Amino acid sequence: MSRTLKITLSYDGSEFHGWQVQPGMRTVQGTLQEALARVTGTPGLPQSSGRTDAGVHALGQVVSWATESPIPPANLVKAVNDLLPSSVRVLAVEEVASDFHARRSAKKKTYRYRIYRGDICPPFLARYVYHHPFPLNEDAMVDAAPLVEGEHDFTSFAAVDPDRSARNAGERSDGGDDEPLSNVRTIFESRWESDRDELIYTVCGSGFLHHMVRNLVGTFLLVGKGSLTQRDLRRILELRDRSAAGPTAPASGLCLVSVEYEGGIWS
Amino acid sequence: MSRTLKITLSYDGSEFHGWQVQPGMRTVQGTLQEALARVTGTPGLPQSSGRTDAGVHALGQVVSWATESPIPPANLVKAVNDLLPSSVRVLAVEEVASDFHARRSAKKKTYRYRIYRGDICPPFLARYVYHHPFPLNEDAMVDAAPLVEGEHDFTSFAAVDPDRSARNAGERSDGGDDEPLSNVRTIFESRWESDRDELIYTVCGSGFLHHMVRNLVGTFLLVGKGSLTQRDLRRILELRDRSAAGPTAPASGLCLVSVEYEGGIWS
Repeated sequence: MSRTLKITLSYDGSEFHGWQVQPGMRTVQGTLQEALARVTGTPGLPQSSGRTDAGVHALGQVVSWATESPIPPANLVKAVNDLLPSSVRVLAVEEVASDFHARRSAKKKTYRYRIYRGDICPPFLARYVYHHPFPLNEDAMVDAAPLVEGEHDFTSFAAVDPDRSARNAGERSDGGDDEPLSNVRTIFESRWESDRDELIYTVCGSGFLHHMVRNLVGTFLLVGKGSLTQRDLRRILELRDRSAAGPTAPASGLCLVSVEYEGGIWS
Repeated sequence: MSRTLKITLSYDGSEFHGWQVQPGMRTVQGTLQEALARVTGTPGLPQSSGRTDAGVHALGQVVSWATESPIPPANLVKAVNDLLPSSVRVLAVEEVASDFHARRSAKKKTYRYRIYRGDICPPFLARYVYHHPFPLNEDAMVDAAPLVEGEHDFTSFAAVDPDRSARNAGERSDGGDDEPLSNVRTIFESRWESDRDELIYTVCGSGFLHHMVRNLVGTFLLVGKGSLTQRDLRRILELRDRSAAGPTAPASGLCLVSVEYEGGIWS
């Protein structure tokens, strides 16, 4: 009998060409599928709450997976981790209702973006931050952050994908969970804060378009540099034009922190 | 006119085949030499306080380097870091007396070894710790740590190098600063402590033989497993026989924290 499993996992994105399986590339999805198949003998493709791009990390990615295997969840955690590289760890496995889908059932996602502000970036942090030692008006960024909260059309912050139908085929990400072709999303919280040598952006929303978090960060950086005002930011949202917003911030600083479903957070 | 520079640097050892230049291998010494040569046009080989093995990290390695270049130290920091990969960072450069030698002038070195005790090792820590989730009597390790303090012949904890003369040619490491063929070293402090999910060993000494810190850790782990007592540990020191001590702990957990010279610490 087929069971649906919810798998929570963490990974260091710098060692992968993103989440999604691609021929000849080392991806998180492919690496996880191979380990699951070796342990259970069932080869189904695990589906995540959203694709993450190359270099983007996850503290609490959530995956759904259908299997005929009777292996108890706790044993599966251990057996799969024994096969995975140390850059990917399964944190938890639980059996869920058969209609659970990691992407379609998700209610909220939280991302974090880390900017290292010190002059010299420690080698042990380099893969997990964007090193930006140049002057920034951090207060202006803190003040501007909540402007994107609420329900908006985020077209100005969405990657212009040449093949839009590809976006629709599944979640593209940062994670673009753009099942519907609409670019309307709800941001519940958008916050910049200082933590010692870092400037950290936390954003929680109903879903995110492809590159949306990195494009928001790139645009807030222009606010920090004094090139954009709060009024400009409002106008950029209204324009629904990608070319109006700032550049895409580097992947290394981004991390998918958690995904929330009806009834709880998996992070 | 030739100047002697003292360069302090930090590196993520997982990306290098150790410190020492080797043909066809990516090493820290070779990578640093190349960046220094490109910036200054002078190709001298930088000399470290001690070689670190493949996978061993440094927070504050110290290097001496002779150059004809008149570039001011602060400019050198910036220019060299612009060329180095993000896994190596020059933290400071200062001009010192011409008789300064990073290895021979060193008075004290401090190493740290991190053991991750949780069931599942986070992907972001995997390169910097040894994952050991199995039972250990941590109190026994804490109690045994100071037994190796003082002046001892550490032959039981020194790698048996096939070519002993190679060891004498320079510092081998963990870092083996074994200029004299004697295996007598002084340990000023040897301490195990718990810090959340980690068990951390800190050792400060006059110098260290090749693999000495990792062999001490491997032996303390046998104390934690109950295979050795404090009395056994004393006897192992007295035996001066490598085969009496425990196995070499993995490189990933080890980090050279700082090197101290007459007049100050560089870390």
